[in-house]
Amino acid sequence: MLISLDKNSGTPLFEQIYDIIRQQIIQGELENDEKLPSKRQLQRDLSISQTTIENAYGRLLDEDLIYSREKSGYFVTSLEQLEPGSRQAATGIVRKKKKHYALPPGTIDTTIVQSDVLKHIAREAFSDDELLNLGDESGERKLKEQIRHYLHINRGVICATDQIFIGPSTEFLLEQALYLMDHPAMTIEDPGYPVIKKVLDRLGSKVDFAPVREDGVDTKTVQALSNPVVHVTPSHQFPSGVVLSLQKRIQLLNHAGAAGTYIIEDDYDSEFRYTGRPLPSLQGLDQNDRTIYMSTFSKVLYPSLRLSCMVLPKRLAELYYAKQLSCNVPRQMQLIVARFMDRGYLERHINRVRKIYRTKMETVTAWLREEYEDVEIYGDHTGMHFMLRVPGTDLRIPAEKHSLVHGSRYSQTEGLRDTVLIGIGEKSAEDIMDILAAFLGDVSP
Amino acid sequence: MLISLDKNSGTPLFEQIYDIIRQQIIQGELENDEKLPSKRQLQRDLSISQTTIENAYGRLLDEDLIYSREKSGYFVTSLEQLEPGSRQAATGIVRKKKKHYALPPGTIDTTIVQSDVLKHIAREAFSDDELLNLGDESGERKLKEQIRHYLHINRGVICATDQIFIGPSTEFLLEQALYLMDHPAMTIEDPGYPVIKKVLDRLGSKVDFAPVREDGVDTKTVQALSNPVVHVTPSHQFPSGVVLSLQKRIQLLNHAGAAGTYIIEDDYDSEFRYTGRPLPSLQGLDQNDRTIYMSTFSKVLYPSLRLSCMVLPKRLAELYYAKQLSCNVPRQMQLIVARFMDRGYLERHINRVRKIYRTKMETVTAWLREEYEDVEIYGDHTGMHFMLRVPGTDLRIPAEKHSLVHGSRYSQTEGLRDTVLIGIGEKSAEDIMDILAAFLGDVSP
Repeated sequence: MLISLDKNSGTPLFEQIYDIIRQQIIQGELENDEKLPSKRQLQRDLSISQTTIENAYGRLLDEDLIYSREKSGYFVTSLEQLEPGSRQAATGIVRKKKKHYALPPGTIDTTIVQSDVLKHIAREAFSDDELLNLGDESGERKLKEQIRHYLHINRGVICATDQIFIGPSTEFLLEQALYLMDHPAMTIEDPGYPVIKKVLDRLGSKVDFAPVREDGVDTKTVQALSNPVVHVTPSHQFPSGVVLSLQKRIQLLNHAGAAGTYIIEDDYDSEFRYTGRPLPSLQGLDQNDRTIYMSTFSKVLYPSLRLSCMVLPKRLAELYYAKQLSCNVPRQMQLIVARFMDRGYLERHINRVRKIYRTKMETVTAWLREEYEDVEIYGDHTGMHFMLRVPGTDLRIPAEKHSLVHGSRYSQTEGLRDTVLIGIGEKSAEDIMDILAAFLGDVSP
Repeated sequence: MLISLDKNSGTPLFEQIYDIIRQQIIQGELENDEKLPSKRQLQRDLSISQTTIENAYGRLLDEDLIYSREKSGYFVTSLEQLEPGSRQAATGIVRKKKKHYALPPGTIDTTIVQSDVLKHIAREAFSDDELLNLGDESGERKLKEQIRHYLHINRGVICATDQIFIGPSTEFLLEQALYLMDHPAMTIEDPGYPVIKKVLDRLGSKVDFAPVREDGVDTKTVQALSNPVVHVTPSHQFPSGVVLSLQKRIQLLNHAGAAGTYIIEDDYDSEFRYTGRPLPSLQGLDQNDRTIYMSTFSKVLYPSLRLSCMVLPKRLAELYYAKQLSCNVPRQMQLIVARFMDRGYLERHINRVRKIYRTKMETVTAWLREEYEDVEIYGDHTGMHFMLRVPGTDLRIPAEKHSLVHGSRYSQTEGLRDTVLIGIGEKSAEDIMDILAAFLGDVSP
């Protein structure tokens, strides 16, 4: 460790030593758990008093930047062990802590995934040297083939394999699609998925809102605005859970066909439909090639997989290839999922998981309807979340207290004050009911 | 299969049948290798003549959309087996074929990676259910820690772990960095890496060029332009291979510090330095926190891994967290690499691979210098490519003939006509020399 002091500077020596060591810790010149020179050694090397050194080490100890071990000396604390406050003070980087929700809508029960199959297939993919150089940058053909087949059978999507594109997230694919459409003004649903607005704001695109009714987005507003693109979640509107009616689907498609505009269909969790037959995707009904279909593997497999896909109209598909965009997904990961699908594991997984989520959804909502006369439940026929409404209340404070997601998070207006969004993916039915009982106990009408 | 014919339409019946089946193949309603109805059955079902059906099937056979198997009947060809021409005709999607180069600069010898270690670690990562939900969206802390340590030891990079960000590619991270800087006008090297220009054009950012001299980018031009950002490849300029001198490094840093501008340092292959000690990174020399450091695992591990990292100045790091950007890399992939590094495999891998590339580089360049008096070689002290110059020639036609990368691909001006870029990663020294001997045999002075 190199410490050079300036005895003529106005800064006290102990502070100079403190500063130098602190810098070396933050900048990584001193490793985690690295031993510092003993006080005696430092005293000798720098020809300074023991008090000076004790003051310097004392301050480092106070700030948890170093720790002492009896009879061994002083050691560097690893920065990630520090409390956020101390770490921020130490590194100088302010990092807002992400809010933790008790029942988040995007999280799954991790015990539900059969990792024995996954790790077996992963081993195969990592044994294949052929996969180490770059492949098709728009996505692996084998994965696209599987997705085409899957979407055709399950969602009625009709497309050529070359119209399918892979990406690490729907957010990423949305950015690519908007780029291909030259950053158009866009109509989005209100209430809606906040990430869409975030992406549009980041790109500096103009945004208009269309309200969501009981049968889906207000198509009159969409038509009146007539923006080049409208973004919808027809199977299970996020967050309200309503389904876009067939009549409105046809209206949207006819308008897009006539006006030459595009529809982005985000079909994020339609696999988990518990009652009746799902309506076919907009893409499959579209006669005019105006629909951009998007889906994710976050729900049907798991969120950290970071795999989504989109189906582009032919004109935009050609533009993707001409502009040489890239999928940015590791090749091995793509082939793991392709093999998982090809061998029938995905289908079996979805069927198994759908039953688990259905039971959970039914247990929780039946209990709510039985125990709480005043609550209303929306969107429990599909997916991994439902909307809970307690009419005439303002749920902001109890939602905050019980770490639930308040409706205002999704709303552009003053609406949804009396709602919370309940994700059923992660916790057991019992845990969800315990959390909701405590929450509803705190809600005063 | 549903075929409904219109006998009163002007279109011949065989063409109607052809059209319907073709559409069903393209749109995936007919699966790969699905059996078509026999001619006899179709004749009966549609009450039409055998000739009509033969004409329709004949045309589908001609276009390779179906194939026949003796005594079994007719089957749907899988579209990916079609020649690009036929596929384009079939799907209606024009997809430009990517140019294949004999000695590309970005490709590795896949036998060089020890996949036994990788697949073992992959198995571990895919067994860990804890990794299935999303983690830190800016990148896994364990990977960031490893990278911080690695960059500190090997490249003299000085930063806190919270300043490190993960992404699937340098292109992706560049876009994020430019977004955080509000899409500034940028000075880039000429000749340079074409992807940088492509990204800037896509974002609609203003671009200026600074010429590259024998001691690196022309710093006077950089200073005179004084754009908010300059992008450089100081360790091994791409494509020329020159090293930015220490004097110019200091000039760039001083100018950035004084003017409040940023430097993007792309350090893509500095690990493979064959002679002497590498100069420290700009980031490590920077006293004013004006350097954005970027690096990739494409060269040190393998390209399809899709893993890169960047070190942001504190102000931009805070902005990344405030804007809640996301790394878009699968969590398991990040932890596979973190473990690979933590257990010392990466260091050993680099040391082993460096020797292989050095031997290859020395063999090829020694042979060139021995056999061809007129050629000049640049940038062979580092990395996986060198620049080959035959002064006074125009290499465009022979480069095209032998599928080599011509210098004009990297140049904004009329320069580099007499150069080609030779990637040594993929092929053996013998194969490289064979290709170059054939190429140089076709070069007339």
